[in-house]
Amino acid sequence: MESRFDGRIWIDLAAHILYNFGAMKWVYIEEIGAYPDQDVEVRGWVYNKRSSGKVRFILVRDGTGILQTTIFGTDESHPLFKKFDALTQETSLIVRGRVREDKRAPGGVELSLQDIEILQVAQDYPITPKEHSTPFLMEHRHLWLRSRKQHAVLQVRAEVIKAIRDFFDGRGFRLMDTPILTPSACEGTTTLFETQYFDQKAYLSQSGQLYNEATAMAFGKVYCFGPTFRAEKSKTRRHLIEFWMVEPEVAFALLEDTIELGEDLILFILERVLTRRKSDLEELERDAAPLEQVKKPFLRLTYEEALPKLQEKGSTIQWGDDFGAPEETIISDIYPSPVCITHFPAKIKAFYMQPDPERPDLALAVDFLASEGYGELIGGSQRIHDLDILEQRIKENNLPREAYQWYLDLRKYGTVPHSGFGLGVERTVAWISKIKHIRETIPFPRLLYRIYP
Amino acid sequence: MESRFDGRIWIDLAAHILYNFGAMKWVYIEEIGAYPDQDVEVRGWVYNKRSSGKVRFILVRDGTGILQTTIFGTDESHPLFKKFDALTQETSLIVRGRVREDKRAPGGVELSLQDIEILQVAQDYPITPKEHSTPFLMEHRHLWLRSRKQHAVLQVRAEVIKAIRDFFDGRGFRLMDTPILTPSACEGTTTLFETQYFDQKAYLSQSGQLYNEATAMAFGKVYCFGPTFRAEKSKTRRHLIEFWMVEPEVAFALLEDTIELGEDLILFILERVLTRRKSDLEELERDAAPLEQVKKPFLRLTYEEALPKLQEKGSTIQWGDDFGAPEETIISDIYPSPVCITHFPAKIKAFYMQPDPERPDLALAVDFLASEGYGELIGGSQRIHDLDILEQRIKENNLPREAYQWYLDLRKYGTVPHSGFGLGVERTVAWISKIKHIRETIPFPRLLYRIYP
Repeated sequence: MESRFDGRIWIDLAAHILYNFGAMKWVYIEEIGAYPDQDVEVRGWVYNKRSSGKVRFILVRDGTGILQTTIFGTDESHPLFKKFDALTQETSLIVRGRVREDKRAPGGVELSLQDIEILQVAQDYPITPKEHSTPFLMEHRHLWLRSRKQHAVLQVRAEVIKAIRDFFDGRGFRLMDTPILTPSACEGTTTLFETQYFDQKAYLSQSGQLYNEATAMAFGKVYCFGPTFRAEKSKTRRHLIEFWMVEPEVAFALLEDTIELGEDLILFILERVLTRRKSDLEELERDAAPLEQVKKPFLRLTYEEALPKLQEKGSTIQWGDDFGAPEETIISDIYPSPVCITHFPAKIKAFYMQPDPERPDLALAVDFLASEGYGELIGGSQRIHDLDILEQRIKENNLPREAYQWYLDLRKYGTVPHSGFGLGVERTVAWISKIKHIRETIPFPRLLYRIYP
Repeated sequence: MESRFDGRIWIDLAAHILYNFGAMKWVYIEEIGAYPDQDVEVRGWVYNKRSSGKVRFILVRDGTGILQTTIFGTDESHPLFKKFDALTQETSLIVRGRVREDKRAPGGVELSLQDIEILQVAQDYPITPKEHSTPFLMEHRHLWLRSRKQHAVLQVRAEVIKAIRDFFDGRGFRLMDTPILTPSACEGTTTLFETQYFDQKAYLSQSGQLYNEATAMAFGKVYCFGPTFRAEKSKTRRHLIEFWMVEPEVAFALLEDTIELGEDLILFILERVLTRRKSDLEELERDAAPLEQVKKPFLRLTYEEALPKLQEKGSTIQWGDDFGAPEETIISDIYPSPVCITHFPAKIKAFYMQPDPERPDLALAVDFLASEGYGELIGGSQRIHDLDILEQRIKENNLPREAYQWYLDLRKYGTVPHSGFGLGVERTVAWISKIKHIRETIPFPRLLYRIYP
């Protein structure tokens, strides 16, 4: 047994190990292919082990990949065999050996071991290869993250976020972080988290959009990208209480411009993930073909064109009703690429949306519905640029005028038409990964009644 | 007068203008140098205007730059002169003309105007070139953002953030977003924002670190980057209630590794901003020389080495006292590069910090103090990897054990030494921009008693 940490309080043996045995180069598994026939050190955890004839295999994970390491020997007194026997799942260790190319090994290389340094033998790791219930896994989310599938989804997530930022930065958009603590609501007040902000009330932001409109007038094209919060008492596989959203806003852009921007963004994200996260999609058994087929322009349907199609498929929706999950699913099941639904009834959309000049009862809004039943990815619109219309809308919606004074100012001092949208990161990741439940698309999901870990 | 929006409720003239006059290419000012001798369209706002002999100048801003446009004519009946006369500061407009190279013009090009389309004449824009009080500017932050200096600071901010993300993504760190809504406190409970999370209390996160430790065990090297919140009743030029922080965490890294990572990060950020935001630093009249001189390794001083230097300069600090703003200022004024202070008394540092094996009364912690009096940029440490020590610390600090069960699990199942730090974005931007007050480093600052706009 070599658990160096057991019972040692003040003596940092780890430091000793890391510095004094460090004659070999510490490499990450994802880079190990660059060191053929060289001696290297890998630091990580036991993912699995097995024996087969004269070979002992240890699968070591270090967070960047899983590496097959081998001990070969016929003599049962081999010094590493005793250490091998002590290894349990998630035991932390440092291994050293020679990198060998081997076509049969996962990743094409394996490490022929010369030394094993055990840091801590993990006892009774709760997540075993057998099936566990979802509540159990959620309760152990901090450990569940180490599993292959969770790993793959979260690497897709990181790639999606990187793609989004590169897309906007590459097109000259300025990142303008908008505040989380806000004095008033953007869309309704029933689903807001409230907190005491010194001598007044504050609410957690549901969208950075109103602030984006101010920064768009200052910087031309901007985006914000941060967490948003909805205190919704809904328990569906598509909702999170806390989720990340990117929101671009462009001065002088009309509805059609924002639709094209959304198309380009989605195609950019898909291309990145399909190129760079192929192995993760394979791990998730995600058939890439439907994603590879996504092409622009996406189909555009007005709300009124969509209604009969929905009714045909059994929906009871009537003019003036909002789309629910069933309607989104019907639409997204019909078409292989995302579909843009536009020109919704103004009364079911947010107060700040520009009315259609020819049909003032309609809003110049767009929802992008993902293919394969994943529902809304993007919601956007052209914004009201006219001071009088905006004042009227604020009155109609009984919003406190004082809180919106600054927002009205944007229509007084050089108003211009402008448009933007919000894309939900977790919905996008769920769609691309073809994950059933959105809770797996974020490291620590916040769900109805769940805030641990 | 051509204010197309005045009094028009339903007819979207803007769309008409943008689509029917669009024979010329719409370009952004930052790209206009690529169109010499071509006819282009620019959409923006009047920044300033003046007449000089036979030339009328309009400075147009579009968020990406400021362009000098000219109308030349001897005949007072020139059709554009009447429009020129109507222009006020922040009037929104579309101008069309030919791009001409002109060494005397700011940016080296100017636009010789053929057409002006006025969208809205701005009346009585509140921010004039004269001096305004800070409360007045803060109250009009949504408009103040259009000013040159604010523009420059926020472009530096966007560059700093891009640099941080590129740095970590380029080094194989996985972005793992940590939750804002958390069931318990990371560092103390007195400065937390509280909210009702369905049937229980939740708090706004002050740090993603504890969660980072879980994701680091799953992904090896990770970072989180998001807004954090401190309900501190302090009113200094260095504090924001809501600010952004990037926090890397690395499995198997020791204190010295995390110091080197912090050095590399700061140098990477500086190099990016000095290369790409030269003109913004000039706009801010920021002497780049002190930043160009920053080199690694940064000076390292232990807390106990720093004490006599502080006392020499008049500080009354005694062993066991934490550094305050005066101490940070003294240190950062002495040295031209940031200084790393290490090995603080454990009792003034967070419960999760690894004790020095040779001096258990000291914590393996580091603070990076910026040069030029800008105070703490980075706070980091090696974390406790030993279950027993951590249990003891949780008890000593009267923290609720149940809430930390998952955090303790990380020490049970394959614990390894690990380290990380947090770098505050706004402090970094303030230092690089040499801005006096941190409130100008974020689009919509949240300060004590200020949450509007």
